Order: sequence, then structure tokens, then C-alpha cells
Amino acid sequence: MAGHGRVHRPVTRPLAPQAALRRFLHPASIAVVGASERKGAFGARVLENLAGYAGTVWPVNPRYPSLAGHACFPSLEALRGVPDCVAIATPREGAAAVLRQAAALGAGGAVVFAAGFAETGLPDRAAEQAALLEAAAAMPLLGPNCLGYTNFALRAGITFSAGPGALSPQGPGIGIVSQSGALGYALAQAVERGIAVSHVLTAGNAAGLDAADLTAFLAEEPGCATIVCVVEGLAEPRRLIRAAEMAARAGKPLLLHKMAAGAQGAAAALSHTGAVAGGHAVWQAALREAGAILVEDFAALMETAAFFAKAPPVPRAAGVAVVSTSGGAGILAADAAERHGISLPQPGEAAAEVLAARIPEYGAAGNPCDLTAQVLNDAEALVACTGALAADPAFGALLYPNTHAYAFSAERIPVMARIAAEHGGFLCVPWLAEWRENEVARRVHPVPGAALFSSMDRCFAALAAWRERADRAARPPDPPVLLDAAARARIGALLDAAPGPVLTESRAKALLSAVGVPVVPERLVQDREAALLAAEAMGYPVVLKAESQDLPHKTEAGAVRLDLRDAGALAAACDRMLAQLARRDPPPRLDGLLVQPMLPRGVEIIIGGQRDPLFGPTVAVGLGGVMVEVLGDMAVAPAPIGPAAALRMLQGLRGFPLLAGFRRGPAVDLQALADIVCRVAALMDAEPRIRELDINPLICGAEGIVAVDGLITAAMDRTEAKD
Amino acid sequence: MAGHGRVHRPVTRPLAPQAALRRFLHPASIAVVGASERKGAFGARVLENLAGYAGTVWPVNPRYPSLAGHACFPSLEALRGVPDCVAIATPREGAAAVLRQAAALGAGGAVVFAAGFAETGLPDRAAEQAALLEAAAAMPLLGPNCLGYTNFALRAGITFSAGPGALSPQGPGIGIVSQSGALGYALAQAVERGIAVSHVLTAGNAAGLDAADLTAFLAEEPGCATIVCVVEGLAEPRRLIRAAEMAARAGKPLLLHKMAAGAQGAAAALSHTGAVAGGHAVWQAALREAGAILVEDFAALMETAAFFAKAPPVPRAAGVAVVSTSGGAGILAADAAERHGISLPQPGEAAAEVLAARIPEYGAAGNPCDLTAQVLNDAEALVACTGALAADPAFGALLYPNTHAYAFSAERIPVMARIAAEHGGFLCVPWLAEWRENEVARRVHPVPGAALFSSMDRCFAALAAWRERADRAARPPDPPVLLDAAARARIGALLDAAPGPVLTESRAKALLSAVGVPVVPERLVQDREAALLAAEAMGYPVVLKAESQDLPHKTEAGAVRLDLRDAGALAAACDRMLAQLARRDPPPRLDGLLVQPMLPRGVEIIIGGQRDPLFGPTVAVGLGGVMVEVLGDMAVAPAPIGPAAALRMLQGLRGFPLLAGFRRGPAVDLQALADIVCRVAALMDAEPRIRELDINPLICGAEGIVAVDGLITAAMDRTEAKD
Repeated sequence: MAGHGRVHRPVTRPLAPQAALRRFLHPASIAVVGASERKGAFGARVLENLAGYAGTVWPVNPRYPSLAGHACFPSLEALRGVPDCVAIATPREGAAAVLRQAAALGAGGAVVFAAGFAETGLPDRAAEQAALLEAAAAMPLLGPNCLGYTNFALRAGITFSAGPGALSPQGPGIGIVSQSGALGYALAQAVERGIAVSHVLTAGNAAGLDAADLTAFLAEEPGCATIVCVVEGLAEPRRLIRAAEMAARAGKPLLLHKMAAGAQGAAAALSHTGAVAGGHAVWQAALREAGAILVEDFAALMETAAFFAKAPPVPRAAGVAVVSTSGGAGILAADAAERHGISLPQPGEAAAEVLAARIPEYGAAGNPCDLTAQVLNDAEALVACTGALAADPAFGALLYPNTHAYAFSAERIPVMARIAAEHGGFLCVPWLAEWRENEVARRVHPVPGAALFSSMDRCFAALAAWRERADRAARPPDPPVLLDAAARARIGALLDAAPGPVLTESRAKALLSAVGVPVVPERLVQDREAALLAAEAMGYPVVLKAESQDLPHKTEAGAVRLDLRDAGALAAACDRMLAQLARRDPPPRLDGLLVQPMLPRGVEIIIGGQRDPLFGPTVAVGLGGVMVEVLGDMAVAPAPIGPAAALRMLQGLRGFPLLAGFRRGPAVDLQALADIVCRVAALMDAEPRIRELDINPLICGAEGIVAVDGLITAAMDRTEAKD
Repeated sequence: MAGHGRVHRPVTRPLAPQAALRRFLHPASIAVVGASERKGAFGARVLENLAGYAGTVWPVNPRYPSLAGHACFPSLEALRGVPDCVAIATPREGAAAVLRQAAALGAGGAVVFAAGFAETGLPDRAAEQAALLEAAAAMPLLGPNCLGYTNFALRAGITFSAGPGALSPQGPGIGIVSQSGALGYALAQAVERGIAVSHVLTAGNAAGLDAADLTAFLAEEPGCATIVCVVEGLAEPRRLIRAAEMAARAGKPLLLHKMAAGAQGAAAALSHTGAVAGGHAVWQAALREAGAILVEDFAALMETAAFFAKAPPVPRAAGVAVVSTSGGAGILAADAAERHGISLPQPGEAAAEVLAARIPEYGAAGNPCDLTAQVLNDAEALVACTGALAADPAFGALLYPNTHAYAFSAERIPVMARIAAEHGGFLCVPWLAEWRENEVARRVHPVPGAALFSSMDRCFAALAAWRERADRAARPPDPPVLLDAAARARIGALLDAAPGPVLTESRAKALLSAVGVPVVPERLVQDREAALLAAEAMGYPVVLKAESQDLPHKTEAGAVRLDLRDAGALAAACDRMLAQLARRDPPPRLDGLLVQPMLPRGVEIIIGGQRDPLFGPTVAVGLGGVMVEVLGDMAVAPAPIGPAAALRMLQGLRGFPLLAGFRRGPAVDLQALADIVCRVAALMDAEPRIRELDINPLICGAEGIVAVDGLITAAMDRTEAKD
């Protein structure tokens, strides 16, 4: 189960309660304030989008006696009942007053379409937005600056965008949550090509309800089988993590596309809704651990969701059987399988026998299997071959690449899907024909047990995500490592004793040691003679470093000398270093010189701790040198974390083979390393005064793992510290 | 100009001449042998696919007096003229006889649909295929085991797949070449959604014409504006390189998807058409250098081609202006731009002024620009904003994300495209709405100056390919480095003198030195005393190695001792190494001991030479250690190459920053390193006896670049050597 044993830090606002949202988002009555007959006006468009709605519609506008066949009312107070949903299609200036009336009546919730609030960046407009929330009081509020929502089952479009459009096909529906109204409705147009959609809910400026509330609503909403969520940034992302955990508990797949992935995107998001993006990698890590399926390609969201809406939660087996009528399509499948790490095992004896008997010599009776058009045109042979592969225990899914939008695909695919389902499998159909949205595809989309994909790559990406989700669900609990009271007291005391915000090596390592991170032994000395005595005691070779809070980057300052092999070398190094530092302007305040034993070589690891503006404490780990500095190969996660999650961070590094015993070097003790990552995370979590922490390097050698250098930056003023 | 100065090695078969192919593939008369009225029969389907063809159709079948409204003839000989194209829809057994008749008549060319030839892997069937080619004599032959071809301008489908289908829209057409018939026709179905297609030509087993001939035909065919080519593997890929160079000379974009990218795909290809795949990376490098645009995602081919068919050859400027009506779409664009290295510069003063005046406060008057729906609905404001950005010299393209398949998109997009074109720009439309293939899109596809994309990522990938193609066209000639006669003679003599196929360090370095690769100096000595004298002469520290053709991997065998700092260390190392080698069973045949100066540290490079089964000599380069061994970060190219191409190989390495002066280390002399890569390529090219070559490491230090170790494997028997 995802989210097992996670620490739940308090969130400032609880998620909106399901019952309240259900009244608002599955309404029996809808009032449209500012209803109009003027073509293109928001109030006219909402009425058009309610044309197929069977519930009560109350247009509100003193200027009309009736509108679109409904009696029209001069005000909310004049209605014959209390509306479950109030659509506020008035200009910006009037919205707060209407909200106040709606709340006073006890309405179920309200949508404000008007723009021009906080997204303008103007302080008075931000205040107007705050006033909206105040006016709504406890009543759910969607918007402002949003495209409202559409409930496809009710054919209710409380939106000035295009409404429900084509009747959504029956079957497990996809619920869409989007901050951006335009993108939410862009995705919802999938109904027009035959994909079942249950809801599209757009948050806009999210003065009240945000993407987290809406996701949590869908997690518990029976009409929605799978959730698609598109976010730019949230003031309090931990609420979305909660919502993701709710979806995971409900067994409902949550597909998430996090926008503003890079610097340019984050800047655009800031100017769009004023959202601070926070570290994209932290978002990804937190959401993945909470059970969300991250979809990097926006255009793949709906087809991937349609797959998850129908596929069994756990694949029956890891292997995939490619059942093709084109050798070329089989090769495309093999290429994509390799890219996405999906195996295409050969069929077992029983299946192989059936294939060999049925497939002509110019086909291929293996996997990928080329049935040839001959078998495809022979219903009995097709059933036999499909059945043999579906029954083979090696295969969790069959894959039928459809190369042509032939009418008979609409007949063959349901047959193959039914056979696959009878054996607990599933049929994936990469639709390779460039004509994808025709009548044939429209007939195939609702077929149970089968999903269409617009490319081979998207199909295999979904298969990989399917397996990953199942693996995640099967994981045992992994409670995060936390500091006990004694350790908290020790680090608190060490921080209290620090002379300034920069804790250099000696103090940083004392802190690390206090939480159980092994550190290299050292002696802090004040002169050359003491250094020589210290080295004599610990044995050569040694390392000499200067300790000063004015030298956070010692190597660059010439304040590190490695591999000093005897007393002569150490004495000379002491003299040179002291002379060199004395020449700096201004000279650094020296706490003394550090003498340490020179460790044998090992794999060098960097562990970092930072405070994300949104997520708070995080921990990061990577391989020192090239891997981090040239390739940026670091894994990051919100703190605290458990040892299994820390191990997965290590396994996800591109340089992971270096940890597993590269070039016949010793393998790093991964459990011990994961434990150290957890301890650093626990430290970041426990002590909000620590702004930033670096262990560089942590040497993983044959004889163990030791932190050789550390640097901590702390907020010394308690008022600075926040989490 | 791509392909400048490339060495053209002889190909065994010249490309088919354009005039002959034009008669066959743009026929005035078509005979259908085996014509039939039996529903589903190949001979019936071909007649159906000629229903819209205005040329002469001659069904041939003794059993019918007429078919599909055409007079039917008992044999080819009985026809009233000589057909330009003969479709052979008979079973496999009769195909050769019909081909012979067609050739005897002087027909323009023939298509054989039947399968069951070489692709079965059976020797007698391979012989039958060879007999086809013989029967065709000089006449062009398409197939066997193919889906024929369709000429959309003529509405002629010489295929038993679905035929021309919807009338292809007017405008610059995409010509499709595919080995796989099913995939070729899958792509051609793009006509059904409004994309202009000129031809689909499928090669199947390619007994006669292969993908190279067909690509070369399209390169010179005026009806085709852009070529899409899908290949699995070719017996002689250099013919495809030639065809790619023809397309580049004609200024015609060639978009190429090379299948069988990985091991699984290559295995599938082998069993599909018996094609040997060759190294995928070598294919990619060779085709890129020849001017082809490599499209990794099969599903992106047609939309990328539709873009290239209409876009100007060279973008007016590198920057792209995002003109959106959705803030969310703007963020998606910024994310994708960053992923693909495309800049979204801010508009200049003049444009910024217009935007600021027109765009409401809740929009964004920068780049990405959020016009808001208000501007989109105000034609005059839309023209003003679009015009201002189109006129801004920073922008080579405008990008309008279409979030909804609204009818008015079909009106707005042509207006914006015209404005962009007036300023020499182009309009890209990522169609984010999930309903992509409706009437609106169909009306927009043929708009000049605009291209639709089904995702933001595919749009930016195309923009990046556009810029890369323009950069390539602007490159000066880069003639390959070749060995002169004297150098060839020197290396010939050195190889003649080699005692066996494995040339270890000393001999390998002599060969490298003979082609101008700087190598570390060394002395080959026979005992400890000679080693000490040699070291004394060159100065300590030194390196000691054992030289033996039985020890190709010296480090692993304990036959390398580095950093020997004085005579004592060297003497001890000599004794230990000799004793250790003597204990091996069997003891290696020692040529002696090598003494070399120990070089200061530097960046370690690996250069390799191999013989690709299809491309012949190749050269590869990468960074030693982690980058090659963990990440497989090597660049490869067919040999010989020029210095600019070698430099691009280096620049393409993920570890390139390590060469450019990492961590304030000295930057590597890139010109000198590129020159060494060229020399190794020249050696591989000049001497076919060299099977494999490794320089590991080549040390690039502050004082220069030196090969420290080398290994060459040669074919000692001249009959083994082939290129």
C-alpha cells in the first residue's frame, strides 16, 4: 500500500469534506446568476451547457422573465429553493456580493468565472480575491478565473467553455482535475473521440477549492474510475499528497502531470496564477511515493488514463505477448519494449505448438508474433492463436498493433479482448494507423478489457507504469526514520552552541555523529607541534585542514592537504597553509587545524539536505564527482523517509552500477548507506533551524562508510526557522 | 551542404535511374495479372484501388471477358499496348513466369505481392526470390512480399491494402517509403485526417528495388515535397546514404525512422525480412551526416513531415514566440522549450508595447504570451498582437497552442499563419485538445504557413530538428582525413611483420604512430638490468608493463605497474611481475618488458575502431572510466571522417563538459583530439586487415595528448579481409 507509515505533518487547511463537495459537484439544482441570452456571454454559455441537464435550472437576472425555457428570477433570494450549485457569471466587481447571498441562503457551493483577481499580481486584486473567500464563508468556492466544471453523467456544464459535448461513452470514466481551465477542457474533449470521461473540474486561482480538494473528491466519487490531475504549483502541496494517498487507498489510479518542470516553466507559472513551483524533483518524488502515476507527456494523459480505468490493478504476469499481423509492427514493439524495460518472453511449449500449427511459414510463430493477414482473416485461427497466448502464464498482457483503421478491427478487437480477459489478461492496442479518431476507433474505445494507444511508446510507457504501480502496492510498510527525544536534545544543544550560522567541518560532523552518521575521527589542534603529535597518535598518512567558519569551501581556499605521508610533509603543509591563509584579506578567523587519518579510496557519495519552499525538509543523494557535477545525477525526496525508500533513491541513480561493485571493486553496503540517508533526512526533519546541509564526500570503502567532510548552514534566529 | 566531401566508396549496385522509376511509379497504364472479381482476392482489391485512376487499366485473366468495367485480357501478350506497370496478383508459384513475360514485352516495371520467399528463411524459397530478379532482368521490380505502392496524385493504388482512400488534400505532399507494407500504409492513412500525401512505396523483401532506390526516386520526384522513410535494415546501407545525399542536394527534407534499434528489435527484423541490422548507432550517425532528419518516435513521423513540407528551409531566427490564450498552455510550451533547447526570448520594445496595450491585466504580455480569450475573440486585436510578434526579429516561428477544437480555430489559424508568413516566419499549432481529427483540424491541415502537432513535445522536437537541419546546411565542407600512400605503405609493412593477429601495445603503438597519433615513448627490454638503465635514461617515475600477444588485457593479468618512483621500486616490480607471469598456465610468450615514463594525470579518452557488418570501418570515441563503462557514453561514426565531424562527436558526448575544463582543470585541446579521432578513422578506412582497434587510455593533459596503451586485432590472412 502506498503511503504506508508516512509521517503526516499538519496541513493548515484540511481537505474539503466529500459530502459537501458532492452536493456542489453533483447538483440537483443549479442557479445561474448573470444568466443571459446575449450570444457568447458567460451567462448564456452556461445555460447552453445545461441544455442536456435533467436537474433544476434557475436562471437569475432581473431583466428576463424566462431564459432558455426556464423561468428566470430577479435574485437568488427569489428562488423557489436552495440551489446545490450557484454559477456566478457576473463581472468581477459583483461576484463577492452574490457569493455572500449564496452563502446566506445555504447554497451547496459556487463557481466564480471572472478573472482579474490575484493572477494580475496587483495587491488590491489579491485583496478582492481574499474577500471572495470571506464572502463564501464555509460554502465551497470554485475559482475565480476558472472554467468551472462539467459533470458528464449529469450532462451538466457549469462552464463558459464548451460543455459536455458528445455524450460520454458508458463505462469507467476518467475524472479530470486541472488548475488551468483551458487544459482541463482540452483533455475533456477526449469524449468526442469515444473516451469515457466522468468530470472535468478546474480550479483557476483556487481561492477556495484547489486541485488537492478536487482530487480528494474524485478519489471518493463512485462515478470516477481514474483521476487525471494537471497542476502548476500549489501553496500547500502536502494537501495534494494527502489526496493522492486517498486515491491510493481507494484503489483508484491517479495520473498526474506536474507542469512548470523547468526554470522557464516555473517563471511562466508564477506569472500565470502566482503559484510558486517549488523543486520539480521534490514534487515528483513526493507524489510518486504517495502512489501517483507521473505522466511526463501531457498528450499521453488521457490514453494512459483510459488504460488504467480498465486494466486489472495488478498484471497477471510481467511478460507481454505481441500479436501482430505485421512484421514491421512487431519490430516497433520490440524496440519500445526494450526502451521501457518490458520483457517479451517466448511462448511456452503449449502456446508455441498452437502458433506453429496455425501461422504460415512467412509469418513468425514466436514473440513478437506475426500472425499474418491470413490468420487475422480466419476467425477460428485467430481465436486459437490468441487463446493460446492468453493462456500462457508468461503473459500479463497481449498487445495487438492495429496498423490500419479497417472496419473489421472493430470486430476482431472485442473478440481478442474477451479472450485475454477470460485468462485474467488485458489487450493493449497501439493504433499505428495515422487515422486514429474514426468510427472504428470510436467503436473500440468502450470495449471492456482493451485500451487503445496512439503510439507504441505510449503503450509501453503505460505497461511499465502498470507494473510499477503493482510493485508499489506490494511493498511492505516502510516507516520513516525519526530522531528520538535524546538525539533532538543533543543536536539542539550543538546548534545552540554554534557561534554563527555556518557550521564548518568539526561542528557539522559533531551534529552528524549525534544522529548516528559515522564520521572520520579528527583532532582539532592550534599549532604545528600539536598537529605532529596528533598525527603520530593516529598514524600516517594524514589529512590537514583549516577549520574556520569563514572558509565554507575549504578545497577552493587551499585549506585542505591530502595524503601527508610523514612528519616532514605534515610540518611543511602546516607552515604553508598558515602562511597562505594569513595572506588572505581579510584573514579568516581560524578555530584551529584539523588532523585526520587519510582514508583508503572508495566510492564517494554526496548527501545533501535542503528546505524546499513548499515541501520543507528534503534529502538528496548522488555519486561524487562527474555523476553529480556533470550529469546532475542526484535523487531527492521530502524528509523524513524510510530505509526502503532511501534504497530506491540509490537504485534510481544512473550511476548505481558504481555502488554495486564496479570494475571488481567492492560493492557498497547499500543498507548501511540507505540508513545514513535516512538519518540525514531525520535530522533535516527534526531541526527546522538547519537550512542546508552537505556531506561531501561520504567515502564508502571496503571497511565501511564514513563522512569525511560536512557543512551545515543554520538559521540562528529562531524566528527565521519555519517548516 | 550535407555530405560535402564525403568519400564515396563503391556500391555494388547503383541506385535505380529516376527516368525508369518514373515510368513505373507514375504510370499511364497498369496491367493487373490475376485480376479477379472474388471479394478479398488480391486481384480484386487492386482493381478496387484503381477505381479513381484516370489512366488505362488492363485486367489480365483468361477467365473473364471484362472486370470492373474494363475489358479483360487472357495474357500480357494479348494487351493492346505495353503497360508502364504490371501488378502481379498471382500466387507465388506463377510470379516468375509473369515477370519474364512482362520484361520481354518491355513493361515499365512490376509489383509482386506474393509472400513465402526469402523471408521464410528456407533456402529453396530464397532461390525462388533470386529467380524473380533474374526473370525481371533490367525491369524495375517491387517486392515480393510487399504491399505495392500508391500514387495519390494519380489515385492509383497498386496494392491489395486499402487504396488511396480519401482524396489527398492539395499542397506539398509527403512521399512515404517503407520496407514494411503495413507500416507504410499505416502512415499513409494520414490522408484521411487531412494531411497531403503524394506516394506510399513499400519494398517488402526488396529482391529488386529497396528503400534506397525508392528514396532516391522521391528525392527527384516533383510531386513529393518531403520524404518519410522507415527501414529495418538494408543489405547495403551506403546506397541509402547516397539517396539521403540526393534528397539533401534537392533541398528535400528526408525524415527517417530506423527500426530495430535494440537487440530485441534487431532479432525481430532478422526473422522478418532476413535483414541484418548492423549497429544502430552507426546507422544513425551515417544518416544524420548525410542530411537525414532522424525521428525516433514512429508516431511523430507524419506530423513532423507535414511541418517540414511547409516550413521555410531555414528559420528566420532561433527564437520562438508562444502566442497562447491559456496560461497553462504557455507553461507547457516553456517546459517543452527547455527540454528541447529552444529559446523563448522576450519580445523587443516595439512588440512589447503593442502587447501591453492590447492584452488585459489578467493575461501575460511577455513570452509565453497569454492573449486571453478576449484578444482571441477580437479579430483586430489578434491581428495587431500576432503582427507585432511576427515582425519582431527575435522570432523565427510563432506557436499557437490550440486548446479546443472550436470552429473558429479554422478561421483564426489561417489569419495568424498569413501574418507570420508575411514576415518570413511560420506558425506552429500544437493541438492540445484531445479531439484532434475533426472537421476543424481537417480544414486547418492544408493551410499554408502553418503546421499542426499532436503534442507540445513533438512540436518542439520538430523546431529543434528544423534548426539543426539549417545549421547543417550552413556548414563548410569537411573533407575526411585520408592516409597518403606512404602512410599506407608503412602500416602495411608493420602489419606484414606482425607475428599473429593480436598486436599488443608496442606494435599497436608503432602502427598508431605511423598514422600520426602521438604515443607515449617506451623501451622494450629483456631483463631487470636493462629496465633499470632505460628508466634511468627517461627519468622516474616510470610504468612497467609486460609485452605479450598472449596478454591482450594486461591490467587484468597483473602485467601493469604504475608510478614506480625509484630504482628499488622498479627492480622489485620487475621481479614480482616476471615471477607472477611465470606461474601462469600456460606461461605467456613474452616479447619483453616495456618501460615508459609515468605521465601526469589528465582526462582519459577511449578511441575504438571496429568493422560494422554493414557499414564497414567505424570509429568511436568516449571518456574513459565511468562515462563509457557505466553510461555507455560513446559517439560512433563510419570511417573516414573530417575534423569538424569528429569535433561534433566529442561535443555530443554527455561527458563533454569534462573536456571543456571541468573543475578548473585545463581544457583539452579539442582540435588536436578531433584530429587524432580522424587519424584513427583513416587507419580503419585504409587497412581492411584491421578488425578492431582500441586506444585506452589516450591521456589528454596540460602538456598534450598521448596514447598510453593500444591493442589491435588484425586478419592476418588477406582472404579474411573485406570491407
